[in-house]
Amino acid sequence: MEKRALLYEGKAKRVYETDDAQFVWIEYKDSATAFNGEKKAQITGKGRLNNEITSLIFSKLEREGIASHFVKKLSETEQLVKKVKIIPLEVVVRNVAAGSFSKRLGIEEGKPLTRPIVEFYYKDDDLGDPLLIEDHIEELQLARKEEVAALKYKALHVNKVLSHLFLELGIRLIDFKLEFGKDAEGNIVLADEISPDTCRLWDANTSERLDKDVFRRDLGNLTEAYEKILARLGGPSHV
Amino acid sequence: MEKRALLYEGKAKRVYETDDAQFVWIEYKDSATAFNGEKKAQITGKGRLNNEITSLIFSKLEREGIASHFVKKLSETEQLVKKVKIIPLEVVVRNVAAGSFSKRLGIEEGKPLTRPIVEFYYKDDDLGDPLLIEDHIEELQLARKEEVAALKYKALHVNKVLSHLFLELGIRLIDFKLEFGKDAEGNIVLADEISPDTCRLWDANTSERLDKDVFRRDLGNLTEAYEKILARLGGPSHV
Ligand SMILES: Nc1ncnc2c1ncn2[C@@H]1O[C@H](COP(=O)(O)OP(=O)(O)O)[C@@H](O)[C@H]1O
Ligand SMILES: Nc1ncnc2c1ncn2[C@@H]1O[C@H](COP(=O)(O)OP(=O)(O)O)[C@@H](O)[C@H]1O
Ligand SMILES: [Mg+2]
Ligand SMILES: [Mg+2]
Repeated sequence: MEKRALLYEGKAKRVYETDDAQFVWIEYKDSATAFNGEKKAQITGKGRLNNEITSLIFSKLEREGIASHFVKKLSETEQLVKKVKIIPLEVVVRNVAAGSFSKRLGIEEGKPLTRPIVEFYYKDDDLGDPLLIEDHIEELQLARKEEVAALKYKALHVNKVLSHLFLELGIRLIDFKLEFGKDAEGNIVLADEISPDTCRLWDANTSERLDKDVFRRDLGNLTEAYEKILARLGGPSHV
Repeated sequence: MEKRALLYEGKAKRVYETDDAQFVWIEYKDSATAFNGEKKAQITGKGRLNNEITSLIFSKLEREGIASHFVKKLSETEQLVKKVKIIPLEVVVRNVAAGSFSKRLGIEEGKPLTRPIVEFYYKDDDLGDPLLIEDHIEELQLARKEEVAALKYKALHVNKVLSHLFLELGIRLIDFKLEFGKDAEGNIVLADEISPDTCRLWDANTSERLDKDVFRRDLGNLTEAYEKILARLGGPSHV
C-alpha cells in the first residue's frame, strides 16, 4: 500500500489517499486541542499513543463482533482504514455525568446515570458542535430517521462491549464520542478513533483521570496518563 | 375573588394567591428582559399589552377546543388563572428558522422548516435554559415519557390553531414558547402566557417584526409593534 496525496488535515490526524481508492492512510498528530480549538498544545508522543490505543481498541471490538473502518496499524503513528464518508454527527454515549453534560444540566460530575444516554452533536467546528435533537438531524438532512436509530443502537452496543473491556482493566468508561461513516456499499461503519482523546476514562479505584481532561483541566502529565491506558490494554511500552 | 400574598415574581409577571386555593392572580409587569436577563428595560404599557393579548389568545384557543389555565381578565394588567404546578420545560415550536435556532444550526433566518419542530428547554435561569433531548428530561425527572409525548402533541395542536388564527390576521407565526402545568387532578394544562414576548410574529406582507425581537435587536418601538398585534386580534385600543 502506498501513501499518496493529503486528503484533509484535522485537529488530531492527517488523512491521506492511498493507491487503492477503498482505503485511506491515517497519521496521528502530536497536537492536543480542547474547547473547540481555543486551547492548543504540541505533546510529543500523543500521536503514537492514540494510534496504538485506537488500533488495540478497534481490534478488540472486532473480536467482539463490532466492525469498524480499521484495517491495520502501519507504524507507531499510522494506520490503514477503510475510506468512508463521515456522517457529520458526533455520537456521544454517557454512563456517568461529567464535563459539559454536568455543567449544562446541573448534574454533579461523577453521578452515574439511570441508564446510558446517547446524544448527537453536529460535527461543525464553525458552529461549535451544537447538541441536536432528532428533528434537527432530519431538518439538516444529516441522517435519515432509520439511520439515527441504527447509530443509537450501534453506539449502545459499543458502550456495552467497551465498558466491560475497560472495567476488566480497572478503568471506568464515563463517556465517549464516536464517529460513523458510510462505506462504498452504503453500510454504516464505525470510524475515526477511540482513544483517551475521545473517551473519559477514570481509574476504577482512585478516580484518577486517564484521558484528555488531564489536558483540558491541567491535571498533570498527559502522556503518562495515556501510557497507563496503553499499558493496561496490553500495548507496547515505549520505555 | 380577592388578591392575597405574592407567591412569586418572575421576569414578566407577579403571581398572587387568592382566597381560593385553586386559582392564582397574575399581574403583568412593564419590564422587558432578553438574553437570559442580560438586557433589561422598563417599557410602560407592555404589561397591559401582554395581558390583553394573552387573554384574547387563550379565549380564542378555548373556542377552538384548546383548554388552558385562563379563567378571565381582571383588569388591563391582571388576569385570573387556574393554579398549576408548572412543568419546568419551555416547549418551543418552530415553523421557520429564526433567532438562536438559526445561529446554532447555521440555517438562515426566514427559511421555512420542512415540518414544525418541537424543542424542549430546561426552564432554569441559572443554567441558561439549556436545550434538552428526551433522555435528559427523563434523567432529570422533569416529565415522564408519556408526558413528553403529550406535551409534543399539545404543542403541535396549539401551533396548528395559532398559525391559522394569526395568518388570517396577516401575521406569520414563526415560532413560540409554551409552558404547561399540572392542575389539582394531575391534568396537563396549557399555562403561562402567549404574547409577542413568547412568539415570533412577522407581518405576512412586509416581514416587519411584531414581537420581542424589536427589543432584543433594537428595531424600533416595542409597544407600537405590540399594539398592532392587539389591534389585529380585535383588542381594545388604548389611543
Ligand atoms: N475512515 C475514514 N475515512 C475518511 N475520513 C475519516 C475516516 N475516519 C475519520 N475520518 C475523518 O478524518 C478527519 C481527521 O480527523 P481529526 O483530526 O480527528 O479531525 P477533527 O479536527 O474533525 O476532529 C475527520 O474529519 C474525521 O471525521
Ligand atoms: N397557572 C399558573 N400557576 C402557577 N404559576 C404559573 C402559572 N402560569 C405561569 N406561572 C408561572 O409564573 C411565573 C412568573 O412568570 P414570568 O414572570 O413569566 O416568569 P419567568 O421569569 O420564569 O419567565 C413563572 O414561573 C411561570 O411559570
Ligand atoms: Mg477528531
Ligand atoms: Mg416567563
